[in-house]
Amino acid sequence: MCPRTEPRIARAAALCALLVATGRAAAAAPSSAAQIMHEGTAQIPACVSCHGASGEGMTTTRAPRLAGLPATYLLAQLNSFSDGSRQNVTMAPVSLALSPDQRAQLAQLYAAQRGPTQPPIGSAGAGNDGLALHGRWAQQIPACVQCHGERGVGMFPPLAGQSAEYIIGQLRAFKDGTRHSDALGLMHGIAAKLSDADVEAAASYFAARPAPAGKSSARADALPGSTPSTAGGAKAIFQPSDAPIPDDPFGQVIKLGRDVFENPRKYAARYVGNDLRCSSCHLDAGRHVGSAPMWAAYVSYPAWRAKNGHVNTFAERLQGCFLYSMNGRAPPLGDPVLVALESYSYWMARGAPVDPNIPGRGYTRVGKPALAPDSLRGARLYESRCALCHGPTGAGARDDGGAPLFPALWGGNSYNWGAGMEKVSNAAAFIKGNMPFSQGDTLTDQEAWDVAWFVDSHERPQDPRYSGSVAQTRALYHDGADSLYGTVVDGYLLGSKAVAPGGHLSPERIDGKQR
Amino acid sequence: MCPRTEPRIARAAALCALLVATGRAAAAAPSSAAQIMHEGTAQIPACVSCHGASGEGMTTTRAPRLAGLPATYLLAQLNSFSDGSRQNVTMAPVSLALSPDQRAQLAQLYAAQRGPTQPPIGSAGAGNDGLALHGRWAQQIPACVQCHGERGVGMFPPLAGQSAEYIIGQLRAFKDGTRHSDALGLMHGIAAKLSDADVEAAASYFAARPAPAGKSSARADALPGSTPSTAGGAKAIFQPSDAPIPDDPFGQVIKLGRDVFENPRKYAARYVGNDLRCSSCHLDAGRHVGSAPMWAAYVSYPAWRAKNGHVNTFAERLQGCFLYSMNGRAPPLGDPVLVALESYSYWMARGAPVDPNIPGRGYTRVGKPALAPDSLRGARLYESRCALCHGPTGAGARDDGGAPLFPALWGGNSYNWGAGMEKVSNAAAFIKGNMPFSQGDTLTDQEAWDVAWFVDSHERPQDPRYSGSVAQTRALYHDGADSLYGTVVDGYLLGSKAVAPGGHLSPERIDGKQR
Repeated sequence: MCPRTEPRIARAAALCALLVATGRAAAAAPSSAAQIMHEGTAQIPACVSCHGASGEGMTTTRAPRLAGLPATYLLAQLNSFSDGSRQNVTMAPVSLALSPDQRAQLAQLYAAQRGPTQPPIGSAGAGNDGLALHGRWAQQIPACVQCHGERGVGMFPPLAGQSAEYIIGQLRAFKDGTRHSDALGLMHGIAAKLSDADVEAAASYFAARPAPAGKSSARADALPGSTPSTAGGAKAIFQPSDAPIPDDPFGQVIKLGRDVFENPRKYAARYVGNDLRCSSCHLDAGRHVGSAPMWAAYVSYPAWRAKNGHVNTFAERLQGCFLYSMNGRAPPLGDPVLVALESYSYWMARGAPVDPNIPGRGYTRVGKPALAPDSLRGARLYESRCALCHGPTGAGARDDGGAPLFPALWGGNSYNWGAGMEKVSNAAAFIKGNMPFSQGDTLTDQEAWDVAWFVDSHERPQDPRYSGSVAQTRALYHDGADSLYGTVVDGYLLGSKAVAPGGHLSPERIDGKQR
Repeated sequence: MCPRTEPRIARAAALCALLVATGRAAAAAPSSAAQIMHEGTAQIPACVSCHGASGEGMTTTRAPRLAGLPATYLLAQLNSFSDGSRQNVTMAPVSLALSPDQRAQLAQLYAAQRGPTQPPIGSAGAGNDGLALHGRWAQQIPACVQCHGERGVGMFPPLAGQSAEYIIGQLRAFKDGTRHSDALGLMHGIAAKLSDADVEAAASYFAARPAPAGKSSARADALPGSTPSTAGGAKAIFQPSDAPIPDDPFGQVIKLGRDVFENPRKYAARYVGNDLRCSSCHLDAGRHVGSAPMWAAYVSYPAWRAKNGHVNTFAERLQGCFLYSMNGRAPPLGDPVLVALESYSYWMARGAPVDPNIPGRGYTRVGKPALAPDSLRGARLYESRCALCHGPTGAGARDDGGAPLFPALWGGNSYNWGAGMEKVSNAAAFIKGNMPFSQGDTLTDQEAWDVAWFVDSHERPQDPRYSGSVAQTRALYHDGADSLYGTVVDGYLLGSKAVAPGGHLSPERIDGKQR
């Protein structure tokens, strides 16, 4: 593959085109992927001639790094060069000359390669990490790493180790639509919101990072802190500060809280029973309005909660997240994990008024649907808009290094039947305001309800308050139209098979047909 | 005794004067107090003729209720009628005709009387409870009940059961100085700040309350709630709202917190080891600026504390108060007492910005003294300005019903050696801003330091962190000029005799001479 042409690199592209048009003109039997990679065919130059001997990319040809990219992604790119959804004068004829089998094999071959892990271009990333690591949620721009991760998954390739010029070229192509192979138009939507400076900063950040080799925790170390800021007018939405967390004993606890928030599996392992992160539901590390921001929750407690019928402190409220949403167990009050999360939330809340009705609390409101929510309509929508990240079976996705990237929405690795998200109204509100990722408020109210209904009509881990009977547990905690627990869907009684952490179904008490 | 004359009650006074001038003119042996009370003497009409058969007071003569008033107070009044510091044309000649012994006996006699407990005048108290129960701390006007209590003590008689007209007359007399028998000029200072409407409201509140009989918790039930209020400008001092606490499940917990705050002996008995209240140090039920208001503390935690070397949540900070200031034990995290106090503090903080440096936090600053603090100067000042309420031995005072009224400042019933107040700088700041009660900011910085030094140079309950050695405990927790623990005062090593709750000295480990 050769890089996409830009006017200023027209000379390099012309060279590539020349290689395609001339050279080994008369091959016979279909070449193997390894042959194509290293020797080329009559119509195709050797891939290594532009992409480097190990698929590491080349600055002279401006060809991107291919080594270790997800095979699905690489195959999709080859296909998009041939169908024109990604325009490149060099790669178009190359891809057209490859058979479907050859494309698939080449994709597998490059995905399996490792290549050097040092950055191909040594431009410094300092000061350029804002967009890459934090995004800009006021414009619904998530952090680049939030989908591309450390190692990439599926359609979201890792970016570290690509040259700045390549990344810049692709972002521009997404923006002007000459590359429109992106799923759901996600990258077009995001690139359209980026200034030239944004594009260069993001590109330069990833160009300066080594291509993925081992595990990294760059995100956890570089997230922004929140410092005091004056609250706006009475009805203005509070904005947590971006100032850095101080490097003192209190700051260390705040940072631990942020680390727990982003990676509870690592920093609060004994209390979590699935792969969700706090930030799976509380976007932008707990700062984003419309996804129950933590600064708003902080100033809303203590409060009386109908869920457990007494006044909950903020710490007790956090315990509930571990027990239900994280399908784990509640850290004891005073546990360093709770103190750290409370400190991090306090830090974000600095400058906010103490107010149980603070604007921005909870989710964005979603209107009542015109039609009763429907699982079939929801399923269709899920397949087209949600499955890309959350998987066709709702199991979520890990990056190729095994790190959780997108949360499981049902099954043994998702939130349990006691979580707030199992209430269809909560899920609909969250989806309406935030999903698809970076495209919040694009679904209709009806669509949000339909897909929420579909998601919450699947089995998941048992409610920790399970009384021994699904019917009784429903009567106690799930009575009403907002929960599907204890109802029969497709002949299966939801809740009748407890799903244990890790995804294994543990038949416990079968009150209905198994699904 | 007859009531103080007012122009509009001149006729009644004239009647009294007549009784004095005429009647039983030629008695011989000194009459007993009982005789004087019921029969009078040659110079003195029977007390009952104006004050009623049981000392209950009379509306026709406008003579106040005497039954059950503190004997010290009654005696002081008799003395003040004769020395002119309390002006009353009827009572002046009566008191002059009584010998010192007769005065003392009459005071004892009336103090021992009970009289009826129904209010002599049935004026409604509704809507008039503001000043009586809450005071107006912006002007350093404490609640009337804060000194007069339910049953009165020493120079602070109970007010319930007195007629509104009598109370009004006395407040006016304090204001215009015609009654200046009040200790430290406290009542003159307070009355001078009262409008006519204030005077009438307070009088009508107490007139409508039954004279003390059994225990009452009127104060606990009628304290104001705090509702959201908008914070002032960046540098303005936050003012908690006066709106009532709602009557809902959350409000019930908030009210419990307020009850604990005002009366921990009753509402958090298992966790307290002395007679202090939370509001002994945090005036105006935790609202008053200059005495570490709780709304400011609430928005300042979590925070790192040097005292225990880690990040404390607000709940843990509250635990410290029980362990040290209350010389008790820390309620476990999640205990209803802590949840209630956190809820009450949250309630007061509604509308305040989350800010560890919120204006009004902690104590008013006190300047460094010109001279080193001196215990002898402090002792003299204590005797003249503090002993009135806190007692000559620092033991504080209970009202005549046994309820704690003024906190003990040292000894077994005071805060222990681990409390913040044992730091002389903290005590000096508190005293400077708030003492004498209702006369904050009247002492010089030097005086505040001197009296703080004196107070904190007395033995008190052992530091709960006691290591087994006073010297080591000092080195660990009291090193520096701000604590007298482990220093020798008048030949006695402070801390060497642990004082157990209840006032008994429990010799534990004698490292120096006993005091």
